[in-house]
Amino acid sequence: MSILFKNCYLVTPGFENENMSVLVADGKIKQIFAPGDKLPEADTVKDCNNNMLMPGFVDVHCHGRSGFDFCDASVEAIAAIAENKLAEGVTTLLPTTLTVSEEQLSGALKSAADYVASNASKKGCKLPGVHLEGPYINTKLIGAQNPAFVRLPDIEEVKRLNAIFPVKKVSFAPEVEGGAEFSSALLAMGITPSAVHTNATHADFKNAYLHGMRNLSHFCNQMTPLHHRDIGMVGAGLLHDDVYIEFICDKLHICPDMIELVFALKDTEYIQLISDAMRASGMPDGEYDLGGMQTFVKAGAARLANGALAGSTLQICDALKNVYMVTGLDISELVKTTSYNQSRALNLPGIGKIEPGYCADIVILDEGFKVLETYVDGELRYKA
Amino acid sequence: MSILFKNCYLVTPGFENENMSVLVADGKIKQIFAPGDKLPEADTVKDCNNNMLMPGFVDVHCHGRSGFDFCDASVEAIAAIAENKLAEGVTTLLPTTLTVSEEQLSGALKSAADYVASNASKKGCKLPGVHLEGPYINTKLIGAQNPAFVRLPDIEEVKRLNAIFPVKKVSFAPEVEGGAEFSSALLAMGITPSAVHTNATHADFKNAYLHGMRNLSHFCNQMTPLHHRDIGMVGAGLLHDDVYIEFICDKLHICPDMIELVFALKDTEYIQLISDAMRASGMPDGEYDLGGMQTFVKAGAARLANGALAGSTLQICDALKNVYMVTGLDISELVKTTSYNQSRALNLPGIGKIEPGYCADIVILDEGFKVLETYVDGELRYKA
Repeated sequence: MSILFKNCYLVTPGFENENMSVLVADGKIKQIFAPGDKLPEADTVKDCNNNMLMPGFVDVHCHGRSGFDFCDASVEAIAAIAENKLAEGVTTLLPTTLTVSEEQLSGALKSAADYVASNASKKGCKLPGVHLEGPYINTKLIGAQNPAFVRLPDIEEVKRLNAIFPVKKVSFAPEVEGGAEFSSALLAMGITPSAVHTNATHADFKNAYLHGMRNLSHFCNQMTPLHHRDIGMVGAGLLHDDVYIEFICDKLHICPDMIELVFALKDTEYIQLISDAMRASGMPDGEYDLGGMQTFVKAGAARLANGALAGSTLQICDALKNVYMVTGLDISELVKTTSYNQSRALNLPGIGKIEPGYCADIVILDEGFKVLETYVDGELRYKA
Repeated sequence: MSILFKNCYLVTPGFENENMSVLVADGKIKQIFAPGDKLPEADTVKDCNNNMLMPGFVDVHCHGRSGFDFCDASVEAIAAIAENKLAEGVTTLLPTTLTVSEEQLSGALKSAADYVASNASKKGCKLPGVHLEGPYINTKLIGAQNPAFVRLPDIEEVKRLNAIFPVKKVSFAPEVEGGAEFSSALLAMGITPSAVHTNATHADFKNAYLHGMRNLSHFCNQMTPLHHRDIGMVGAGLLHDDVYIEFICDKLHICPDMIELVFALKDTEYIQLISDAMRASGMPDGEYDLGGMQTFVKAGAARLANGALAGSTLQICDALKNVYMVTGLDISELVKTTSYNQSRALNLPGIGKIEPGYCADIVILDEGFKVLETYVDGELRYKA
């Protein structure tokens, strides 16, 4: 099976141009053609009308969508999430857990395993593994996590969960007891450690850094702020060039000026756009549950009763649009933040570029960043 | 009168090299000679033994030194400050006032005028004008200023003071009533407006920016911090490339990590090292007055009874050393922050470079940044 995408506005890290063509065969990018090149035959030829064709998005931090939360721990929930994420251009997803009991975590991972083993998973985005956000966090920066289930880092629990379904990333507070060593233990398992809901000083972070931590989850939100007598975790993300940050660019969690500032100060190759979406994403305003806590969604902003933000309803295509509008940076630069950086930070090979040999995970968007079509391994899985 | 400085380790913005020679005549830099060049005759020949020779420092924010405060409003006080600043390499000083009554401000400026008109001023550093820090500040970020004398911006008061002695810089809170327009009014008088002790939002700052404000005094200290939902004044200093910041690099007001971070993120050409010194600078630990408030100096740190920092005891040669040790940047890059940037920010022509035509304001330091000699207009005014 081969497909020739003609007349693309091709966008891949470091390159963008109109009237390009891309040949896909056997689920891989086979060849790229410049304007005027002689084009090959193909089973299917698709004229893209110079809409943007770019690598499918990788969302490494997403709790739910379309009314479902991954911690609902049902195959129905994970199937709905995996299928509906395609509509925002996501081709690879790390379903993300909340701070809940091990029983509930096990159930969620079991549902992911069952879904991936089923034929239904051929209709959704790829699920290479999960992201555990907590439960090993600092209650002082609890945000919209449930303090009742916070516990100390427990590598044995991670091993039990990883035996059910692959754990790709664990976000935790590195300053808690055993936190630094936990990074090393995760890395030894091939899992990416990341800081989240953390009250760490910069000295705490440097200790974690020495143990291999190179990621900060939802940068700025629920972490020690920049101060001139301790630069904290926000300072750590800005100071250490080789530290990746997740960034919620919904203009609510992070204001436009801060988006502009961080993109001005931080190498684009170390920023990962995430949704941090909860179940209300892709749904109308109303009341929704988040890990047992009631949230109120109004004009797309999800808040607890006390007014604190409780996850987002952001879609990745809109995150990219927001950053493009705020920063004015080239889209070929910004496209790094939607999949290429994630593939490096999480060791997801073959993902994040439109280049020969890469997976044919592709999203086609119009100039307003509306998703027109989403392909997984060269297969059309979503069409607007 | 000519002097030939031989065997200098010459440091000037963008250039440093050993075995250089500098010819000074009639108070100006006349010519620079590379190693091996044929050297001219001169009235005096001085072998610098490859100690560092660089532009004399410009301290634009200094309240006092050696037991005296500018607001003591006596010729004795300003004379002691102007002479003793030479020992730290300062050749140009803006004596800086505190938030006090107009009567006291007038007295301080009168003492400066009397001193400059007297022969005694031939023994000190240059005083092109003063810096008014307050009294137009925000009591919410009062720091070690006296709230009793805080008032709204008053351009008529500035005009009255400027008639006594030139006002070169006024630091105030731009968000207070009339604050933005005050910037324009100061600029119309040739005075540099700067933000200090300010609770301004980024929107407030942008309003002041449109009115011409391009300076932030003692950056980070007593101003709105960086937050991800309003980047505040700290964010403003990092976001706006053309905004100058004053920076107290004593490692107390600003921790070493923050010094490293700001030098990594901000163009060196927009950073001005200041002392923000109070009367205890150059004096032993003990109790000292600051604008009517008692301060306790211990191990060089000046604090109010409540523990808040109350000015510094920093000397500019040590500020430069601290930044050099923390950042590891070239000294030819850092030398911009001790005089060249100040000359641009405050329109002080002929100052800040060792290049033909510039004033022969020169400091010679050993490799430990100890000041050996200080020259003003080619005249030796300090020798260790």
